[in-house]
Amino acid sequence: MLDQNTFVEQTLLRLLDQKKYHSLRDILATMNPSDIAYLLEELDERRLPLVFRLLPKELAAEAFVEMDSDQQELLIRGFSDTELKEVLDEMFVDDAVDIVEEMPANVVKRILAQADPDMRKQINEILRYPEDSAGSIMTTEYVSLRPDMTVGEAILRIRRTGVDKETIYTCYVTQDRHLIGMVSVKDLLLCSNDDTPIREIMEENVISVSTHDDQEQVVQMFSKYNFLALPVTDAEGRMVGIVTFDDAMDVMEDEATEDMEVMAAMLPSDKPYAKEGVFELVKRRIPWLLMLMLSATFTGLIITHFENALAVCTALTAFIPMLMGTGGNSGSQASVAVIRSISLGEVESKDLPWIVWKEIRVAVLCGVILAVCNFVKMLLVDRLLMNNPDITVTVALVVCVTLVFVVLAAKTIGASLPIVAKKIGLDPAVMASPFITTIVDALSLLIYFAVASAMLPL
Amino acid sequence: MLDQNTFVEQTLLRLLDQKKYHSLRDILATMNPSDIAYLLEELDERRLPLVFRLLPKELAAEAFVEMDSDQQELLIRGFSDTELKEVLDEMFVDDAVDIVEEMPANVVKRILAQADPDMRKQINEILRYPEDSAGSIMTTEYVSLRPDMTVGEAILRIRRTGVDKETIYTCYVTQDRHLIGMVSVKDLLLCSNDDTPIREIMEENVISVSTHDDQEQVVQMFSKYNFLALPVTDAEGRMVGIVTFDDAMDVMEDEATEDMEVMAAMLPSDKPYAKEGVFELVKRRIPWLLMLMLSATFTGLIITHFENALAVCTALTAFIPMLMGTGGNSGSQASVAVIRSISLGEVESKDLPWIVWKEIRVAVLCGVILAVCNFVKMLLVDRLLMNNPDITVTVALVVCVTLVFVVLAAKTIGASLPIVAKKIGLDPAVMASPFITTIVDALSLLIYFAVASAMLPL
Repeated sequence: MLDQNTFVEQTLLRLLDQKKYHSLRDILATMNPSDIAYLLEELDERRLPLVFRLLPKELAAEAFVEMDSDQQELLIRGFSDTELKEVLDEMFVDDAVDIVEEMPANVVKRILAQADPDMRKQINEILRYPEDSAGSIMTTEYVSLRPDMTVGEAILRIRRTGVDKETIYTCYVTQDRHLIGMVSVKDLLLCSNDDTPIREIMEENVISVSTHDDQEQVVQMFSKYNFLALPVTDAEGRMVGIVTFDDAMDVMEDEATEDMEVMAAMLPSDKPYAKEGVFELVKRRIPWLLMLMLSATFTGLIITHFENALAVCTALTAFIPMLMGTGGNSGSQASVAVIRSISLGEVESKDLPWIVWKEIRVAVLCGVILAVCNFVKMLLVDRLLMNNPDITVTVALVVCVTLVFVVLAAKTIGASLPIVAKKIGLDPAVMASPFITTIVDALSLLIYFAVASAMLPL
Repeated sequence: MLDQNTFVEQTLLRLLDQKKYHSLRDILATMNPSDIAYLLEELDERRLPLVFRLLPKELAAEAFVEMDSDQQELLIRGFSDTELKEVLDEMFVDDAVDIVEEMPANVVKRILAQADPDMRKQINEILRYPEDSAGSIMTTEYVSLRPDMTVGEAILRIRRTGVDKETIYTCYVTQDRHLIGMVSVKDLLLCSNDDTPIREIMEENVISVSTHDDQEQVVQMFSKYNFLALPVTDAEGRMVGIVTFDDAMDVMEDEATEDMEVMAAMLPSDKPYAKEGVFELVKRRIPWLLMLMLSATFTGLIITHFENALAVCTALTAFIPMLMGTGGNSGSQASVAVIRSISLGEVESKDLPWIVWKEIRVAVLCGVILAVCNFVKMLLVDRLLMNNPDITVTVALVVCVTLVFVVLAAKTIGASLPIVAKKIGLDPAVMASPFITTIVDALSLLIYFAVASAMLPL
């Protein structure tokens, strides 16, 4: 797939160098807009507008939508007003909004000036909705039908107005702008009698979202119901737009990426890794690193506090990293399982009790298995094989008893904190590995020294 | 949304208790199959078949597909052969395959016996493809057209045969079973002349996948091209099926969940967290915990080896957790960024050099910022505020120089290992936080003691 693309790309670049614009245009015209966008991104500032102008108008607009915002800006700055207007006229409103959101103010001004009044109004409307809300990702171009139309009239209406709609396959039946039903083109085409009124074949139980619903919720509904499009209504129940499956897919991918980034202690970003500069990456990574480094002061203080105990039984120091590591891993397993379940809408705040109870049982089982294995390993490897007489049965017992409690604490905390975060309005993904690890590290040490003090003459 | 569902659910349960089956049936008939499945999952073994039998046939099959495999099995075991046949007849082939894959052998045998011969053949065909391949997630029910048909004939064909197809909106043009073009229902409906031959309006540059392509690649194509459906061809280029956007969305979600689970040191699973038993969770979590715990033996050995050095300068011990933690976090930031880019198809093996170069620059910047902050913190907080005379300027320097090297090593290793894993055919997600942390832990200690030995009189 990718190799084939590289081949096409090189052929096109050769044609460009040889100024064979006619052949270039003919090949480009058969290509998919996404592939053209991919190709355009490889071009320099000088050749980009040249190739772009070779594209047929509709394809040009489609490829434009798929491009990077940096390159879009470059092109817009080079466009004449007429060219900009032509591209905008071919665009769907939601794509125009996506572009406007990424552009600096002076470019936005030019775009709004060139968009036709109706589109300008719709762009401004969508821009008013909060970021990451259903309203901000919807499009206002959908097919609406009246309940008293016949199937034949509906098909005619679609054939007449469908070209400007983002999808024609799901049509919405409205009365006084209120959503009262929906009907698919499949239903219309498969209906044997063209005179049947829409009212009779429409699905009345329409599932919709509200403009202010979170986009994550919209995605959950797509994956639950397998819809092609989901209608969006305002606070008064009037239909204002639709979210289509392709936008939902993009959101799904972005939300998963964002969760992973937050879980790995990074501030999330919209840009792909390859496009991000070194300084941008540092800016996204340093805050949490700094925060977590400074909060490790506590573990340092705990160790300093128990310095004398460690001096008496130096063998204990060697097991600190293992205990912390196992605690961190146990905790992050639980937290990631819960964070993902929250993201997928499978788990809510009210589920906290059974989750904690489940994790306690898992933790006891895991803890005991780990402790037994570790006990055997310490006596066989550390004591016998490595010939270290400091590793007594009591020291091994101290480490293994600590292990059980550390795993128990880690899993309970790891599973609870994401739910607590959700409840108080924080992103649950923050409560993943790095954050949990820092808490569990300190806790592991406290448990370790408490158990050691009780069992050893320190 | 969820609260509304709970309300509906309680109403329905009340009707069930009062044996008002007629009203129950009327309400169920208006509901979405996914919501019905959700409701059925709440019912016990006795009431489940009762309510299921109230559903109209088509809706029953649709709800059945959305249910848990445990409940599907329960229902199938209760079905008469005729009932089973009725449900199967309403089902799409790919859904039937999904069910067959989850059932024990004797249930599979019954299903195949009741499926009509054509469906049985198709199920067996799809089952032959490797797990997680395009072939295994496709359906064989699509609309195919001939190039010499007219638009009018095509619409007629869709109206006649469309009811059994998973999607009618993208139709595929084939000649001798080879895929030569595609045309959307939108193109057909918006075409002004019904006598136009399909050949003239079809898109000839059709993007397809091969039966053995990985499902992750299929998902990447969906998110790149925004397709409703993607055609699947066999090794000879013959069209054998399609993957629809809703299945791609499910795969997208599953793959993201799997990546997160693997990144958090768990063996992945298909089951949602809420449905998994304690033993299943332990089985998925203990292998990596055990492996990582035992590999922490190395960190223990390193500390034991430098026991005397630590005894001379006890202050050093207190900073071990901070160095390990910062190293682990730095490494996991880099590894997760790269793992996600690989999953999204943005990064490949050949990108290793620039990725390492980028991470080196990010690491130096992050390392220096962290070192400076830590230096100030150690002298102000640990030395002055905590009044700890052991924290000399030299000790602070040792810790901070170590920090720079640890971050550098962690980011380089974190970014490289996922790519190396991909290259040798392992899951890149394995190379996330827990695995990286274990390596970085040992490395941090070695760097720490090397720097300390060079700068302090140990």
